[in-house]
Amino acid sequence: MKIVRPTLLLDEQRCRANIRRMAERARRNNVVFRPHLKTHQSHTVAKWFRDEGVAACTVSSVRMASYFAEDGWKDITIAFPLNHLEVEEINRLASTIRLNLCIVSATSLEGLIAAGLKHKVSCYIEIDGGYHRTGVAANDEAAIDAILGVITSSPLLDFSGFLTHAGQSYACRTGPEILTVHAQSMQLMKKLASRYRSRFPDLKLSVGDTPTCSIANDFNDIQEIRPGNFVFYDITQCAIGSCKEENIAVVMACPVVAVYPTRGEIVVHGGGVHFSKDFLKQSDGSIIYGRVVQLQADGWLLPSTTMVVKSLSQEHGVIKATTEQCASVKPGDLMGVLPVHSCMTADVMGEYYTLSGERIVMMPKV
Amino acid sequence: MKIVRPTLLLDEQRCRANIRRMAERARRNNVVFRPHLKTHQSHTVAKWFRDEGVAACTVSSVRMASYFAEDGWKDITIAFPLNHLEVEEINRLASTIRLNLCIVSATSLEGLIAAGLKHKVSCYIEIDGGYHRTGVAANDEAAIDAILGVITSSPLLDFSGFLTHAGQSYACRTGPEILTVHAQSMQLMKKLASRYRSRFPDLKLSVGDTPTCSIANDFNDIQEIRPGNFVFYDITQCAIGSCKEENIAVVMACPVVAVYPTRGEIVVHGGGVHFSKDFLKQSDGSIIYGRVVQLQADGWLLPSTTMVVKSLSQEHGVIKATTEQCASVKPGDLMGVLPVHSCMTADVMGEYYTLSGERIVMMPKV
Repeated sequence: MKIVRPTLLLDEQRCRANIRRMAERARRNNVVFRPHLKTHQSHTVAKWFRDEGVAACTVSSVRMASYFAEDGWKDITIAFPLNHLEVEEINRLASTIRLNLCIVSATSLEGLIAAGLKHKVSCYIEIDGGYHRTGVAANDEAAIDAILGVITSSPLLDFSGFLTHAGQSYACRTGPEILTVHAQSMQLMKKLASRYRSRFPDLKLSVGDTPTCSIANDFNDIQEIRPGNFVFYDITQCAIGSCKEENIAVVMACPVVAVYPTRGEIVVHGGGVHFSKDFLKQSDGSIIYGRVVQLQADGWLLPSTTMVVKSLSQEHGVIKATTEQCASVKPGDLMGVLPVHSCMTADVMGEYYTLSGERIVMMPKV
Repeated sequence: MKIVRPTLLLDEQRCRANIRRMAERARRNNVVFRPHLKTHQSHTVAKWFRDEGVAACTVSSVRMASYFAEDGWKDITIAFPLNHLEVEEINRLASTIRLNLCIVSATSLEGLIAAGLKHKVSCYIEIDGGYHRTGVAANDEAAIDAILGVITSSPLLDFSGFLTHAGQSYACRTGPEILTVHAQSMQLMKKLASRYRSRFPDLKLSVGDTPTCSIANDFNDIQEIRPGNFVFYDITQCAIGSCKEENIAVVMACPVVAVYPTRGEIVVHGGGVHFSKDFLKQSDGSIIYGRVVQLQADGWLLPSTTMVVKSLSQEHGVIKATTEQCASVKPGDLMGVLPVHSCMTADVMGEYYTLSGERIVMMPKV
């Protein structure tokens, strides 16, 4: 495979190992593994999950649900608040698969019915487990009861249970911090379940974010996990403490286009349109956009070098390097960069290649 | 046009007015207008430039050069350092159009010849005019002469002149600051020209960034300008002082999915995969990802509201709002958001729609 421009490479073995490890954790903890597919957005990688016995999945948009339904996924949760403007596509999906919606208010659910829901859908009530992005506060019984009122009064709506995303785990920087977030989130969900289980004996509790699912071992009373990023991981997950560098399954190959030894900088083709503009704040307050590894014919060497991507323009990536490091590269060489946020990087690239050169296409942007 | 999910809207009138204004500035200043097409990345919008008499263009990658060459553009400058690994596509292009390359070192140009250049290309030497991203320092005669040595010794290489991008203008926050950057950049380029013009009487000076080209009026001794972002503008350009809000030609329509009056936050569908993750630092140190305007049937109302996008996840946008503002919207409403960086936003969206509902496709990602 001849690489001439920024190319996202996927180590299939590492990726499959990440999937297998999480599938085993789910089995060991007796929870359903419903992976979030928004990171890889690909039919091919989704099949690798099927190889591990996975039959249900999570997505982040109605469009993404349609994309995976097309490839035979029959049980899909859209882990994004219901937008009743999308009723047409929701109806189309609900007529052929088990579609699980994420409900954050009675208003939006009433909106769905008023907009003309035609087929049965199941509803998870999203709980704000401390991340404060979306969801009903766990102690807001009035809001929960209002949603349950709408659900139970419609023959097209089923109540599946409560779902939360402990996104605050992304601010953690050690294992114990992650476990604290997990314990708080679990406690809150279990308390909620105990309040409603007599009325809804089959209600499920669904949790899931890569940090907690990667290291926690207590999923007692939880029915389902929905991590996503772990399929590729990235240097942010390393910084959080969810993974080791050797678990990161993607790297961007970037051609060197200029070397500035006196400035201590190497410029590569690889910018915001390739990596996205997400950054990682380092412990010294500086921000980085990627970490350089040495590419080899069959992958990349670890640990990463001391070189980091210090800034990105639309097409340029600027790497901070010592004089010696500058002297070791020239225009036309390829440098490998571990991404800060693999979900966003894959999303902007739209495709990636396995180390053996197989092209993997993603959900089309338009 | 029925909008049900995040949709980038383009006001064609505003966009054409931006193009016309810049074309007139170029005519008035007697410089060639060679717009950078990386912001809109579209054959349709590129035609609007042709309507204003534009015949030459700038792009940011070899792929983008091919995309516009396909639509009949015959004189294209790739304003990104030459990467000789792309020799095959460079040869294909150079066999049919006038292709202008951007050279930052003798090494990379020698690399191009060694890689098998077959057709004539013209070369601009990129000068670092104080931005310190790429380019040869203006006073580094040895490096410039080395590049000129390679150019003059090959029958396939023509020397066109010197090119610079005063990207440091993006750090400006007032008109006078922008004019200072422009004056320094001009002075440096003119000094360079005077050193080489006796040897190369036809050498051209090419400058261009949206801030300086939007407000400067002195382009004496400059042959060409290459601004790009001005075609859409955005709130960063407003903050810099390059434009007024009324010049911004794109807005993202985002469906409201949740309202949290007690937190003073509205959550919309519209996240990093729609806006990109570029942000704007405000004078108080806070960062924002967009500014809310009121959408109307035929466009949007100005000035913008006091609401701003305070954070983005992959699909979520969180808008800071007063209690009253929260009370004025409900799930299913559409909110308009002026983007922070229209180039990156358009790039991740891959398409946009005019206010009359015409779909404009962009260069495909893959």
